[in-house]
Amino acid sequence: MRNKPWAIDYLQSNNHIVDVNSTYSKKIKEFFSTDQPLHIEVGTGMGTFITTLAQRNPDINYVGIELDKNVLIRVTEKVLELGLTNVRLLLLDANTLMDYFNEDEVDKVYLNFSDPWPKNRHAKRRLTHSNFLTSYKQLLKQDSIVEFKTDNRGLFEFSLMSMNAFGMKFENLDLDVHDDEHEDNIRTEYEEKFSQRGHKIYWIQASF
Amino acid sequence: MRNKPWAIDYLQSNNHIVDVNSTYSKKIKEFFSTDQPLHIEVGTGMGTFITTLAQRNPDINYVGIELDKNVLIRVTEKVLELGLTNVRLLLLDANTLMDYFNEDEVDKVYLNFSDPWPKNRHAKRRLTHSNFLTSYKQLLKQDSIVEFKTDNRGLFEFSLMSMNAFGMKFENLDLDVHDDEHEDNIRTEYEEKFSQRGHKIYWIQASF
Ligand SMILES: C[S@@+](CC[C@H](N)C(=O)[O-])C[C@H]1O[C@@H](n2cnc3c(N)ncnc32)[C@H](O)[C@@H]1O
Ligand SMILES: C[S@@+](CC[C@H](N)C(=O)[O-])C[C@H]1O[C@@H](n2cnc3c(N)ncnc32)[C@H](O)[C@@H]1O
Repeated sequence: MRNKPWAIDYLQSNNHIVDVNSTYSKKIKEFFSTDQPLHIEVGTGMGTFITTLAQRNPDINYVGIELDKNVLIRVTEKVLELGLTNVRLLLLDANTLMDYFNEDEVDKVYLNFSDPWPKNRHAKRRLTHSNFLTSYKQLLKQDSIVEFKTDNRGLFEFSLMSMNAFGMKFENLDLDVHDDEHEDNIRTEYEEKFSQRGHKIYWIQASF
Repeated sequence: MRNKPWAIDYLQSNNHIVDVNSTYSKKIKEFFSTDQPLHIEVGTGMGTFITTLAQRNPDINYVGIELDKNVLIRVTEKVLELGLTNVRLLLLDANTLMDYFNEDEVDKVYLNFSDPWPKNRHAKRRLTHSNFLTSYKQLLKQDSIVEFKTDNRGLFEFSLMSMNAFGMKFENLDLDVHDDEHEDNIRTEYEEKFSQRGHKIYWIQASF
């Protein structure tokens, strides 16, 4: 994604949709007009997934979390175009999730095609590393689900090991999402791209 | 495998290698000339895996468990040809494992390309169903490993769920064994066959 010098200005001018300065830190509910269940996606990318999901489920509030301001422009545009009132966006690094959210206030976490960080010395940056699982567990209500999808075999293997070691319960698992694809599946930008290259898509739902 | 009317006679005439009538039930150690760690394979098939492994590891005793008498003929022949003293075979249904073995006497369990039993109502027949895991846990020494390999995606998905739900710890995991194949990997008959058809081979090591 090309750097856009005007990105922050653009996002800030849409501060009814994007929280650039953690204005709603510890009070995310005030960012929405309706009080309803809260689902978050970490690493939203261009936002096809979260905006499609939000259209399907008007009775759920969605928060897209993304650290790349240039990418967030596209998501903001989509939210505006679709007139979605149940999607809000955070310019935030997932490492600081627990500075932003309160405990037990989120009902579901989505991770889609998270950066694989293939080198072992970067394992702590993977969004399914135990450090991140610790955050998700804290911000999630009890028994809530983390849903994770990727084409990256190494990352998926790591994630199964990591979630299992953390004591998470596997609720659902699919090692080839596009074989007999479920009608509910929403293809993300990366999913479309890597599926076209013949990659298998892996998916898991696990709870704490 | 064609039925051979002479199968039982043949196996019984090799009762120094095959236990047809559970003669060594509850005293498997007496079946071997040397007292050394004991690894078992459930559903041995034609025996390429266990006989190759036994050649590589003369300091381990191997027990191949198979309920098909016709298939066991081929394994017996291989054990004789190779002159292996550290492989013994049981004509036994895995459902009766705990009638045969004592608790805490086995150091490792191998499962290779177990029958998938794809219908839900047959789930209890899958060798990674919790009922079988209960047996393996009993006959295995503490912290010992179950190692499972298959090309069957549905069975592998089920097995990950089943082992995770049982509280087993994933030690190692590979969702494409033949991509960058490890030199230690021993291809079984089914592995060779299904790999040639382009199936991915899945593998997990998990402990209790
Ligand atoms: C490979 S892309 C996938 C995008 C999208 N989810 C999809 O499936 O098409 C990963 C995204 O996660 C974002 N990201 C990576 N690490 C992050 C972090 N620590 N906090 C927030 N976002 C992160 C990146 O900026 C990038 O947009
Ligand atoms: C699909 S074949 C795989 C054979 C071999 N392991 C391989 O990888 O080539 C499964 C084998 O398990 C055996 N088997 C199935 N259920 C069994 C049970 N309950 N107890 C013992 N053996 C069983 C079958 O007779 C068959 O030989």
